[in-house]
Amino acid sequence: MDNLDSQLRFVLEADRLKSVLRVSTLCDGSRRENSAEHSWHLALMATVLGQYAPPGTDLSRVTTMVLLHDLVEIDAGDLYVYADEAAHERQAAAERAAAERLFGLLPPEQGAALRALWFEFEERVTPDAIFARALDRLQPLLANYQASGRTWQANGITADQVLARVHLIEEGSAELGEYARNLVADAVRHGYLAPAPDTDSGESIHTG
Amino acid sequence: MDNLDSQLRFVLEADRLKSVLRVSTLCDGSRRENSAEHSWHLALMATVLGQYAPPGTDLSRVTTMVLLHDLVEIDAGDLYVYADEAAHERQAAAERAAAERLFGLLPPEQGAALRALWFEFEERVTPDAIFARALDRLQPLLANYQASGRTWQANGITADQVLARVHLIEEGSAELGEYARNLVADAVRHGYLAPAPDTDSGESIHTG
Repeated sequence: MDNLDSQLRFVLEADRLKSVLRVSTLCDGSRRENSAEHSWHLALMATVLGQYAPPGTDLSRVTTMVLLHDLVEIDAGDLYVYADEAAHERQAAAERAAAERLFGLLPPEQGAALRALWFEFEERVTPDAIFARALDRLQPLLANYQASGRTWQANGITADQVLARVHLIEEGSAELGEYARNLVADAVRHGYLAPAPDTDSGESIHTG
Repeated sequence: MDNLDSQLRFVLEADRLKSVLRVSTLCDGSRRENSAEHSWHLALMATVLGQYAPPGTDLSRVTTMVLLHDLVEIDAGDLYVYADEAAHERQAAAERAAAERLFGLLPPEQGAALRALWFEFEERVTPDAIFARALDRLQPLLANYQASGRTWQANGITADQVLARVHLIEEGSAELGEYARNLVADAVRHGYLAPAPDTDSGESIHTG
């Protein structure tokens, strides 16, 4: 029963991810999304969009990865993907410490295995991790588009910044990448997303 | 690309599950839980508590089942587990219609496979479904206990009513069932949950 006590402590601690708010909203724009429901959405996408993963992708590992990937935010909080590099470095250190603490609640062997899976997602080297990260980029793009780009507008994000992240989707899946690239073009056409600033004129748009 | 369009329509429709509220609260009692984050929690539990499933359980199928199991609530809404039988019958009919519509958004073969998995969960006959349903019973029990039983109290639920559902956990896993039975006894001891009414005295407590 010792194992079960540690495992349930982990399960209860995980509940706190439901209170970590992301910058993105639900598709209907009604409120900000939390990281637990975001993780559920990614796992559902792994089930439904698995056919676009490269051959040999282990969708069951991808699913577990996306279920776990944001748990570290319980301690480290969510960082907006368009934050600056220094903020991303601080965040990475905070997330490593969080992974030690959270996966450390589990029985040692199980904790090490899940921590390794989390780190694999972060490193984005294996095919499973590359596909999992592609889903993690695609989901907020879909939601932002559905919500008429309000998160982009509120944060002064322009098309070039969004496109700079689309390669993460393309590397995980050619079809999903192509879809994402077209969606960005469509978002600009509809006025949901501002076009790239014209660098020749010296004009620039700063993020808020 | 035809398949992808239908699949993404399903993925976007699924987003609405984040707005379906359950009767249970988060563990800290701060707000009601929604069915998407509840489904995430169950999938995480399938990963972490898999060792308590009967031998031969396919945890990857269990995970997919719990990810999907509440999607029908997008149309049918959530029904409190302690509602009366007539309400449960109306709910079952509404959920079947919802399953037709929602899984019908997908390419036919994929939609039929996921609809069958949803129905398997509902029927609770296969070992995978019996374990998945055990997790679905255990999670709100854990949350209610953590939140000092406020949902039980608000709805006038007594220990006998909770125990009448614990067999669903025991049938999925002896260890998890034993844990749940002890937790109910503990909840009564702490005053989180009212004991069974003394039927000899003719006293009874009606649910609200």
